[in-house]
Amino acid sequence: MINSMAAQHAIWPRKGDVIFEIAGRAKEAIEIYGQEKVINSTIGALIDDDGKLICMDTVYKELKSLPNEKIAAYSALEGQPDFLEAVQTACFREYRPKSHIKATATPGGTGSIKHAVWNYTNEGDEVLICDWYWAPYETITEEVGRKIRTYQLFNDKGEFNIESFKENFEYLVKKQKRVLTIINTPAHNPTGYSLSDVEWDKVLEIMKNACINEDNKIILYVDAAYLDFAGEVFEKREFFTKFSELPSNLFVIVGYSMSKGYTMYGLRSGAAIGISSNKEITEEFFYSCLHSGRATWSNGARGAMEVMTAIASDPKKLIAYEEEKSKYKKMLIARGKAFVESSKEAKLEILPYKDGFFISIPHENPKALMEELVKHNLFAVSLKKGIRFAVCAVSEEKCKKAPAIIKKAMEAIK
Amino acid sequence: MINSMAAQHAIWPRKGDVIFEIAGRAKEAIEIYGQEKVINSTIGALIDDDGKLICMDTVYKELKSLPNEKIAAYSALEGQPDFLEAVQTACFREYRPKSHIKATATPGGTGSIKHAVWNYTNEGDEVLICDWYWAPYETITEEVGRKIRTYQLFNDKGEFNIESFKENFEYLVKKQKRVLTIINTPAHNPTGYSLSDVEWDKVLEIMKNACINEDNKIILYVDAAYLDFAGEVFEKREFFTKFSELPSNLFVIVGYSMSKGYTMYGLRSGAAIGISSNKEITEEFFYSCLHSGRATWSNGARGAMEVMTAIASDPKKLIAYEEEKSKYKKMLIARGKAFVESSKEAKLEILPYKDGFFISIPHENPKALMEELVKHNLFAVSLKKGIRFAVCAVSEEKCKKAPAIIKKAMEAIK
Repeated sequence: MINSMAAQHAIWPRKGDVIFEIAGRAKEAIEIYGQEKVINSTIGALIDDDGKLICMDTVYKELKSLPNEKIAAYSALEGQPDFLEAVQTACFREYRPKSHIKATATPGGTGSIKHAVWNYTNEGDEVLICDWYWAPYETITEEVGRKIRTYQLFNDKGEFNIESFKENFEYLVKKQKRVLTIINTPAHNPTGYSLSDVEWDKVLEIMKNACINEDNKIILYVDAAYLDFAGEVFEKREFFTKFSELPSNLFVIVGYSMSKGYTMYGLRSGAAIGISSNKEITEEFFYSCLHSGRATWSNGARGAMEVMTAIASDPKKLIAYEEEKSKYKKMLIARGKAFVESSKEAKLEILPYKDGFFISIPHENPKALMEELVKHNLFAVSLKKGIRFAVCAVSEEKCKKAPAIIKKAMEAIK
Repeated sequence: MINSMAAQHAIWPRKGDVIFEIAGRAKEAIEIYGQEKVINSTIGALIDDDGKLICMDTVYKELKSLPNEKIAAYSALEGQPDFLEAVQTACFREYRPKSHIKATATPGGTGSIKHAVWNYTNEGDEVLICDWYWAPYETITEEVGRKIRTYQLFNDKGEFNIESFKENFEYLVKKQKRVLTIINTPAHNPTGYSLSDVEWDKVLEIMKNACINEDNKIILYVDAAYLDFAGEVFEKREFFTKFSELPSNLFVIVGYSMSKGYTMYGLRSGAAIGISSNKEITEEFFYSCLHSGRATWSNGARGAMEVMTAIASDPKKLIAYEEEKSKYKKMLIARGKAFVESSKEAKLEILPYKDGFFISIPHENPKALMEELVKHNLFAVSLKKGIRFAVCAVSEEKCKKAPAIIKKAMEAIK
């Protein structure tokens, strides 16, 4: 009896999704104790105060009123031409880099990261990310025989740790010459940190410095998945203008996702947007992605693309969409503020939160803390270095209560 | 100035999609001469007699009446549990193999092929396909450093060329021990050929023979993308029962697509279904695909899955859906018949057509023939060894006329 048929490189430890597991336990608790008695901060999606998934009206009215053929038909392999224009505007708004730019549609932000990792690194390469990282970065790299290398996101003062970034980045430049760095900002998952403009300048200075040697190829991947829920209006997009007139061996890819900004998680739509001072580099990028896309998922979700295009091309619809999004953004900001302020009162140490869906609480034994919290009907995701609290999924009222519960749980397991 | 940033393996000849190009020219011709004057047989989708994409009512009514959260929410990484059940029934109907079976959701059929090629071959391996092949098989294999090897699909009598299959298959077994074979049946793209039960027996006998040596790992991938438009009812599914009780080193993966059977091309939904006499092999398959999926597209199109589940779980809806599909199947059969009969009358040699969307006409200079046909306002896709006529996209009346036009064009360029 033969017990294995997969190729060696395709065999992994068999584990289910940890977030799915704890989310399932939260759901059970809600069934037993009721929605008001349970704090379910496991879900990485916008949830209203009654525990229901928020689906933007302006988006789903548009989707459901599309003629069937605009959902049914195959998209062009690279994405529909009007979508590829619209997605650049949706991403950059008034902060479009003065540079050559070319976009290609991908299934969510994940497809875009896949493109960058596969097409811009070689087997065995290390990809640079920070130590508080979204677990799938590791899954995406290890799947294709790459590895991750981490720098410390924060220094002792709770600021972006530029020294650690520099040290690890320059180590990889020396070792590989070709270095892909993924930076998830604004509204980093899982900490909610956003790089400031000054921090961006420092990062780019280090990268530009490496580019003086023309043998080096520096690829900066900006994971902007949470862009639409960062800042009050569009001010958290200003850093995009820094990608103008970069050296030709510093190539920037921005990963845009429709999952959060359009509450279209399940539609699987997004884009990889390449930015270079050299047109030849963005053309090469486009054709690499075209081949990879054709060879992986064929083409993108037509209906999602048509929704973005329809909203973008009608000023009335665009205003209604932005107003609806703004309402939820305000809700999110209030929840984050409530959690941060209560943390201060409860003397709960949290990582510096600026924007977005998640707040992280450092802890040396995250699994034990997670289990202790379950006893208090508070469900959070355990990470390697702490736990993640999804303010996107928890009412303001509960966000106020949670820090004291977490502090108490920490003391109980001391 | 640096002119290249992509990794060497990610740089390909820059070409657009050939089908897209000729389809664009057909569209232009329709704008100039009118729909009735043009035969556009380029599109690989069901088109009605007026040139409009067919979108099944029973499918799109269901999609548009889903609660928004059933479209908006992320699916489970492997696909929704009820979908993973429903898709097996949709695929096998009453011909389910007596075996261990495990499914995982993929973006269309392409995602499923990607899983098979990536997870079941090693770098440098040759994947066995027939000489009349869907071009993306080559794109998918070359993307990840694999190659294709072809056997002749037909012998001189126009039958399945079992000798050529055997010779090439056994060559690869000897060379690689691990052999992935992709067979696109029923209703093969681009010829419309379907393997008979006798031919299936011969193929499986050759494979089983290779399995006597337990060092060999034989993977059979059945690309069933056109399954729903083959045969009058479900009789073209009977071969699935042959996948019962196979040797444990003969692993079968069936690629199921919702693109054609649900006219959901643009939704990107399908499944990879693993079949083995050894439960351990299907478990391994499931976890390999889970890792690959997470690392590539994250998860599948939730709305498409919910549509299949909703239709499958309501007998009334299922009947209505089957009736609607049956109507289009009849339309397709009539078109195919018209083309085949007219070909006889016009003495046009075509490849043996049994079922489905396409008919192929062999020719030593396909590009010249394609261009000659353009002069007659007939648009078809040129392949390596002939041209492909999409009966799925052309009215019965035009299917009757086309063979004479093609014959005439052939003579003009002799």
